[in-house]
Amino acid sequence: MSEIACSRAPIDPSRLQAMMDELSTFGGGPDGSMTRLALSKEDGAARDWLGRWFARNSFAQAVDAIGNQFGSLSMAGANAPVVMVGSHIDSQPNGGRFDGALGVVAACEAVLAVSERFKAENKLPLCNFQVVNWTNEEGARFQPSLLGSSVFAGATELKWALDRKDGDGVTVRQSLAEIGYAGKDKVAIPSALIELHIEGDKALFEAGETFGIFTRFWGATKYRLAFLGRQAHTGATPMAERKDAVLGAAYLIADLKQIAGEHGLDLHTSVGRLEVFPNSPNTVPSEAVLFIELRSGSPDVLAEAERKMKLRVEAAAEKAGVTYQVRAVDRRKAGRFAEGLIALAERTAATHGEAARHLDTIGGHDAVAMSGVCPSVVLAVRSRDGVIHHPTEFTSAPDQALGTQVLADMLYAIASEGLQAVDPSGTAA
Amino acid sequence: MSEIACSRAPIDPSRLQAMMDELSTFGGGPDGSMTRLALSKEDGAARDWLGRWFARNSFAQAVDAIGNQFGSLSMAGANAPVVMVGSHIDSQPNGGRFDGALGVVAACEAVLAVSERFKAENKLPLCNFQVVNWTNEEGARFQPSLLGSSVFAGATELKWALDRKDGDGVTVRQSLAEIGYAGKDKVAIPSALIELHIEGDKALFEAGETFGIFTRFWGATKYRLAFLGRQAHTGATPMAERKDAVLGAAYLIADLKQIAGEHGLDLHTSVGRLEVFPNSPNTVPSEAVLFIELRSGSPDVLAEAERKMKLRVEAAAEKAGVTYQVRAVDRRKAGRFAEGLIALAERTAATHGEAARHLDTIGGHDAVAMSGVCPSVVLAVRSRDGVIHHPTEFTSAPDQALGTQVLADMLYAIASEGLQAVDPSGTAA
Repeated sequence: MSEIACSRAPIDPSRLQAMMDELSTFGGGPDGSMTRLALSKEDGAARDWLGRWFARNSFAQAVDAIGNQFGSLSMAGANAPVVMVGSHIDSQPNGGRFDGALGVVAACEAVLAVSERFKAENKLPLCNFQVVNWTNEEGARFQPSLLGSSVFAGATELKWALDRKDGDGVTVRQSLAEIGYAGKDKVAIPSALIELHIEGDKALFEAGETFGIFTRFWGATKYRLAFLGRQAHTGATPMAERKDAVLGAAYLIADLKQIAGEHGLDLHTSVGRLEVFPNSPNTVPSEAVLFIELRSGSPDVLAEAERKMKLRVEAAAEKAGVTYQVRAVDRRKAGRFAEGLIALAERTAATHGEAARHLDTIGGHDAVAMSGVCPSVVLAVRSRDGVIHHPTEFTSAPDQALGTQVLADMLYAIASEGLQAVDPSGTAA
Repeated sequence: MSEIACSRAPIDPSRLQAMMDELSTFGGGPDGSMTRLALSKEDGAARDWLGRWFARNSFAQAVDAIGNQFGSLSMAGANAPVVMVGSHIDSQPNGGRFDGALGVVAACEAVLAVSERFKAENKLPLCNFQVVNWTNEEGARFQPSLLGSSVFAGATELKWALDRKDGDGVTVRQSLAEIGYAGKDKVAIPSALIELHIEGDKALFEAGETFGIFTRFWGATKYRLAFLGRQAHTGATPMAERKDAVLGAAYLIADLKQIAGEHGLDLHTSVGRLEVFPNSPNTVPSEAVLFIELRSGSPDVLAEAERKMKLRVEAAAEKAGVTYQVRAVDRRKAGRFAEGLIALAERTAATHGEAARHLDTIGGHDAVAMSGVCPSVVLAVRSRDGVIHHPTEFTSAPDQALGTQVLADMLYAIASEGLQAVDPSGTAA
């Protein structure tokens, strides 16, 4: 392996950086921030840019009904297996430039490098490649997150996904039409999926290592829960008669933090979004909608946390004199990525002198959604200080290049050896 | 008094209802709701409608630099004292149709009825009248509330007021220009101010009475306070490393409710508006801005509540691992309305068999802002179930008519007897 990986499909770091710089112009701010919300006009412009790159490099573009954008390079013939590579280019509001974007750009560069090598050698690869840019990975504008990959994997119904609304009541369906990405192409489940992503945590950074492999993914239980009170004047209305929805929310937010504390490092809880209605300084709020997340690597801890939360919701509502409604529940199971892909990533990283630390991914990744339908894995490069979802999110150019080179080497190995490179037992695909 | 009040300036209840119905079309919903935010296009249209009413009835319109809209009927000559009457037509989001609107419409009808009577009697009144529609009483779109009356009374600086921004960053200055109410007229402080308003509480309703007089006003201390954390991914970031601004907010909201409980019926506390940034389900919030109100009829209780709140802010910030900033503080002192106007209102109400219950106003009224510069009072008619700031807010047509008739009778008394009707000692004006 090592000779092949190191020498046969060298990527072009300058070309990679040029793409990263160009992509950053769509929604990027002077402070390093990135606001490229899913299906926004910035996202639309970035998708158009990616489409032009596909066209220039002879990748055939396809867009499916949930707006996932694919670019296929089919040198191996129509019946060869397909290896999918990519991530997402949507971002958080005021987020960073590397989360997702690096994975798509690295996929383009890696596939290009591998194809150039095969052309130079005048050989045909044993698989085709498909770069993917998934719709609404972040879940910032539309909930839930991983929307495009979940629909693609068949875990989420298309019609339901298209009906999701943003905070202004605009649906995914409308937004796709507005930016011209309401596609009609049918794209098949690939034989394997590889995603490169920034770590978004500090394990690699603190260890002084560059490259890691996400081997396990945490489960998540997400609630959209509304406390319902009654609008009244904050002046005249006696305290005892108020039904203050925000007060119910406050009790629960404090309780959720406490529940996390009861499970040490095994449980993460959060309320990242809170919608208050009518949200006027002089009016007792009639509605507070909490976007709650419970996350754990342990299914038992997750179930226990949900049980505790339900009791606290009841208690918070009673104490604040309000009622509540569960508006949506989204559950993702904890699990493990494909062993064959993990092993190939380890072997490939070793040729670059990288230890390939095994990591848990706690945040969702599209590869988590895809892991239910095909062998999948997420490769990681370090984030400075572990920062993610913030304008100071940063992965250096050499680190980006290393991750992209490992990805290219993995693709080259599969293209040269066939799927047995990642699944010696032949059970994949 | 009684014969004059009962018989000399009868209002026309049908005309009053027709005006209320017309005004309700600007921002009214089919469910009885009203959304006519200050200086919105609905507010602009309603102002234009009021201006047309002024023109039709020979009231001279004036608009000052903060957009307060005046309609003057000057039958008594240029040197006669001016009695101002009115309220506001801006509303809460999804509020009701009577809060403010009744006071403006009743002022129009009462002044019209008095003027018609004087014309019929072929006499000249001893004072002139000026109907007023104050800008941004509600404080829903722009903070603070009572903005127009506070600028008019000289308690708030004009430039500062014009620079206030709504939640979308649009200033009062821009909004006034957009709807054509960036006026240039100079309007003098009147000799007296009378405002009719719905009670917005249930004292009258529960007593089975129709009419009351606000004699005292509560003080209020309002803070705009921001907790400042740090954006981070809600998945990957360890709980111990989070700086969650919403968690700080939650602790304080719960504490503010507790502080209210420590002062029985003497203290009201609320957080009616909460702005969360970036407000994404997957991101630990970096900023939570609370719009806090402390209200009391007792200056001592108010000061004690503020002292306690400050300690709790410190504690909440420390417990959540965040910092905080006080962005704005607005203080209004508790006080008492003008005795002469209260006495005239009592005498006048008695001619209609009304007990004229004395009420505290806890919510602000423009007359509170004006009470610092001229004798002022607020008359009240009952609200069904004490509801205010809600689509079901309701004051019946007969109750509206009674309040308007008392108002007209008071104006008639002043117009007939001169200012000594409300200030026998001659200290007013």
